Amino acid sequence: MTSELGPTKRTKISRGKSHAQSDRAILAQVLGEGLIAHVGYQAGSHPVVLPMAYAFDLNGPDIDGTLYLHGSVAAMMLRHPQERQLCATITLLDGLVAARSGFEHSMNYRTAVIIGSARLVTSESERLLALDLIVDQMIPGRATTLRPATRKELSATAVIALPLHEASVKISADGPEEDEPSDIAAGTWGGHIPLRFRADAVVTDTANDAEVPSHIVERVTHLS
Amino acid sequence: MTSELGPTKRTKISRGKSHAQSDRAILAQVLGEGLIAHVGYQAGSHPVVLPMAYAFDLNGPDIDGTLYLHGSVAAMMLRHPQERQLCATITLLDGLVAARSGFEHSMNYRTAVIIGSARLVTSESERLLALDLIVDQMIPGRATTLRPATRKELSATAVIALPLHEASVKISADGPEEDEPSDIAAGTWGGHIPLRFRADAVVTDTANDAEVPSHIVERVTHLS
Repeated sequence: MTSELGPTKRTKISRGKSHAQSDRAILAQVLGEGLIAHVGYQAGSHPVVLPMAYAFDLNGPDIDGTLYLHGSVAAMMLRHPQERQLCATITLLDGLVAARSGFEHSMNYRTAVIIGSARLVTSESERLLALDLIVDQMIPGRATTLRPATRKELSATAVIALPLHEASVKISADGPEEDEPSDIAAGTWGGHIPLRFRADAVVTDTANDAEVPSHIVERVTHLS
Repeated sequence: MTSELGPTKRTKISRGKSHAQSDRAILAQVLGEGLIAHVGYQAGSHPVVLPMAYAFDLNGPDIDGTLYLHGSVAAMMLRHPQERQLCATITLLDGLVAARSGFEHSMNYRTAVIIGSARLVTSESERLLALDLIVDQMIPGRATTLRPATRKELSATAVIALPLHEASVKISADGPEEDEPSDIAAGTWGGHIPLRFRADAVVTDTANDAEVPSHIVERVTHLS
């Protein structure tokens, strides 16, 4: 894996270059914190963008590592993936920037954009690993506490892989930076509202009387 | 405006039909709560998905109302919009569902998917309205407290409109629902972790000594 994000023409950031990041560690950080990817593909004459769970493996078999997506074998996006170009975008919304003019309003965010041709994962060991990684992306440490997937479950599930090679990361942070001196002098308030995902109290399903396991407690604590 | 979401072939939900919603009021609710849209378009031979601020107007001039997006006049997505099909997806992530098998793990979410051909907004009054709506989508009540946009700002900004006509909404809520009886009997814990965006304390920019206005206080309170 290269340590720098070497953008191809397709992932070169043309707007807001000052926010572009070139460190692969930043990509791993954004992917590590995210929970859903918005995945786009062309469906005939129009694009479709759908939210999907994902996982990633920096040591995966694709160039610069692997992003994994999964779904029903019947899902259109996952059929014949090698014939499709996909774009998977993971956005962490970090805040609202209330500048002193409408024009300067913006948001704070960290966004990773990954473009590539998807590979249908066929090796059983890689499929099992990817499915465990997807569970652990949601709740670290949970996959190992669950029974293995059954044949029936595996045959109903498609797993696809996207190389992390063609990736870009853009970050915007802090408060308003380019307010006009006249807007500042006019006394308009400016600032920003930090935002983050937080967990509310866990809801235990009552079908049995199992106790809340430690990996769930840790997940909630991490998100509190 | 029709009160039902009448999906066309393009927005018909084929996967997870039981989660599909058919009420236009639900679309308005999801759009009202969201902060960013993930907008996809085909850029030559591959799709691109980017996070964007948005606003909507149920009484806008397009069929069933209007979704507004804006950006630099130089942004590729906004150039010649009438020649592009766009897909704008707004996802509210509501929780993590920890089922008793990896296969049944899922997330709780509310997602609106809007597909259509975009219209470049050229009328000055509609452009000004759209830009105010975008500020107010982030922070309700703020637009009216700001000075009007200047000629220079307006000429640097492109506004495009997408009809709310071809839209679908999918909602998934609550805990694990289809766990195998054997997994329940095995004593595995199942449940869900509710998630929501919350605001941390406002950060005031120190370029002047304006006081935090009430619409900011209200926004933070609403997100606390």
